[in-house]
Amino acid sequence: MKVRVVLDAMGGDFAPQEIIKGGVLAKKEYKKDLELLLVGDKPVIEEELKKRGADFKDFEIIHAPEIIEMADSPAKAVKRKKESSIVKGIELIKNNYADAFVSAGSTGAVVAGSVLNLGLLPGIMRPGIAILVPSLKGKTLIIDVGANIDPKPIHLLQYAVMGRAYYKLILGKDNVKIGILNIGEEETKGTEFLKETRLLLQKSDLNFIGNVEAKDIYSGKCEVVVCDGFAGNVALKVSEGFAEIMSKFLFENLRKGFLGKLGLLFIKEGLKNFKKIIDYSEYGGAPLLGVNGIVIISHGRSNAKAIKNAIKVAMTEVERNLNEKITQEIKNVRM
Amino acid sequence: MKVRVVLDAMGGDFAPQEIIKGGVLAKKEYKKDLELLLVGDKPVIEEELKKRGADFKDFEIIHAPEIIEMADSPAKAVKRKKESSIVKGIELIKNNYADAFVSAGSTGAVVAGSVLNLGLLPGIMRPGIAILVPSLKGKTLIIDVGANIDPKPIHLLQYAVMGRAYYKLILGKDNVKIGILNIGEEETKGTEFLKETRLLLQKSDLNFIGNVEAKDIYSGKCEVVVCDGFAGNVALKVSEGFAEIMSKFLFENLRKGFLGKLGLLFIKEGLKNFKKIIDYSEYGGAPLLGVNGIVIISHGRSNAKAIKNAIKVAMTEVERNLNEKITQEIKNVRM
Repeated sequence: MKVRVVLDAMGGDFAPQEIIKGGVLAKKEYKKDLELLLVGDKPVIEEELKKRGADFKDFEIIHAPEIIEMADSPAKAVKRKKESSIVKGIELIKNNYADAFVSAGSTGAVVAGSVLNLGLLPGIMRPGIAILVPSLKGKTLIIDVGANIDPKPIHLLQYAVMGRAYYKLILGKDNVKIGILNIGEEETKGTEFLKETRLLLQKSDLNFIGNVEAKDIYSGKCEVVVCDGFAGNVALKVSEGFAEIMSKFLFENLRKGFLGKLGLLFIKEGLKNFKKIIDYSEYGGAPLLGVNGIVIISHGRSNAKAIKNAIKVAMTEVERNLNEKITQEIKNVRM
Repeated sequence: MKVRVVLDAMGGDFAPQEIIKGGVLAKKEYKKDLELLLVGDKPVIEEELKKRGADFKDFEIIHAPEIIEMADSPAKAVKRKKESSIVKGIELIKNNYADAFVSAGSTGAVVAGSVLNLGLLPGIMRPGIAILVPSLKGKTLIIDVGANIDPKPIHLLQYAVMGRAYYKLILGKDNVKIGILNIGEEETKGTEFLKETRLLLQKSDLNFIGNVEAKDIYSGKCEVVVCDGFAGNVALKVSEGFAEIMSKFLFENLRKGFLGKLGLLFIKEGLKNFKKIIDYSEYGGAPLLGVNGIVIISHGRSNAKAIKNAIKVAMTEVERNLNEKITQEIKNVRM
């Protein structure tokens, strides 16, 4: 069975070039398993495909001339811009014309559009954006990194359940440990909201280890870290900024003097592997969990490789029936 | 004039050894300008000083046998453990027996003890912990990183004023730019609390540039970033965790193979400089701004160098009358 993935050709800082390039790469690599639909301004998409010498037969193009800008209010934009690539892309999922939607466009608009048009899975109260980051022990899933900046404790419990299901699905690990992002491990730490969340998770049958600190996201103390979307977003973006400054300082310092320059030649291979580990584009996209459809939100700065990997994540979620599993587990969790 | 600094000999993961070692280093380096008081368990302190061959005449020891543990509730602990190094250290400032207090012990206890015993500066409603981190353009000050996890908009306005005063005092820069930590730059982004804060800062006479994202802490878009203590703490600790994982992955990858090992030899000097830039211990401690006294909170994992640098920061704040300046500026700010 081929998975039908809709790719938002117009969303992202480097759209349409990098997005379409990513789509072409994905189609080349996952040929047998993938049917790719490109949604966006048809003439623009066709021109890009032509430039890359792609075979038009490999792609289905859905015309969507409107664009949702980053400055648009997400909720208003998805109601008004019915001809935008985000709204049309989500509609294709809703009408079962395709199986999954991948977009590097406005996160807010993708979330609002998905909730509005797809609705939520049975039992789910709020969607959450999950993201996998590297840790000293493997990978950590953070949920939520920006769908819901003012959640209630019950939402974080549901994030834990969804995060566990996703972690198992993608990384094949059972009984993953869950932690709450807090400013200290002690029970007394944090806001009232987090104290209530702690009590709720303690009562559940999740493998809950208590509060974890932000540094534990990378130390790998647990596999799934739940948090409100504001804190999660801060955690994610700080890492991005920090990675950038570290790379810059590192190279500046290494380049100084002859020995450093010579050394850089020798360590080229090692640095390349290192960059791969911390390169967000290796991880593709972040699934929007909890909505009634498979939706992947890619980083605004996604390059072709990130898009290709996001398409792969979308295919895996479809093939392994992620949403059925989430629905089942939400039904079974003790709340 | 000598500055009289009280050092909490018992606080921190590596206390008392590293703390006292840091005190000895500071005394050696700032001899003429520093009188150092060590507060803590007297026999323990004396033994450590003896081990290091330090001259007992160089230090005044204040006996404080009780220890506030990390698991203690901060507010209760400072009320009950009157003989702890934190409570006694703060009292020495309150009674004008010394000018500044440096502790790597429980942050919560230092904050609670300072507010309770020193009180706040005139006009200040809540204290905030400020920290300087490196940026692509120099340094960024983040305030608050954990004193106040549920602040009101007016508190963030006051953080901006205090942060500006501190930045000017330490780095000599006028008219620093202020930003609010948010999940996007647009006015529509963030919680109601942040939207109100934005309006308040817009009305003030601060050089306010609007919302900044967490990655901008390191890109250096503005010099002072204000936020609630929870978000600030997450930002800080994520960076710590990320720095650790990056170092580990980097070295692991560089060590692979003969060329990498050889290259590592050549780039040793560059790596050392790089590590210095991102090493928190270079920055010493984080000032607790807004309390009626000079209080520096050092990282729990402080080594001797971090303690020495924290003592230097304390001395600078005293010499340059930081708290007088804050009091003046708070009086003048348009609210």
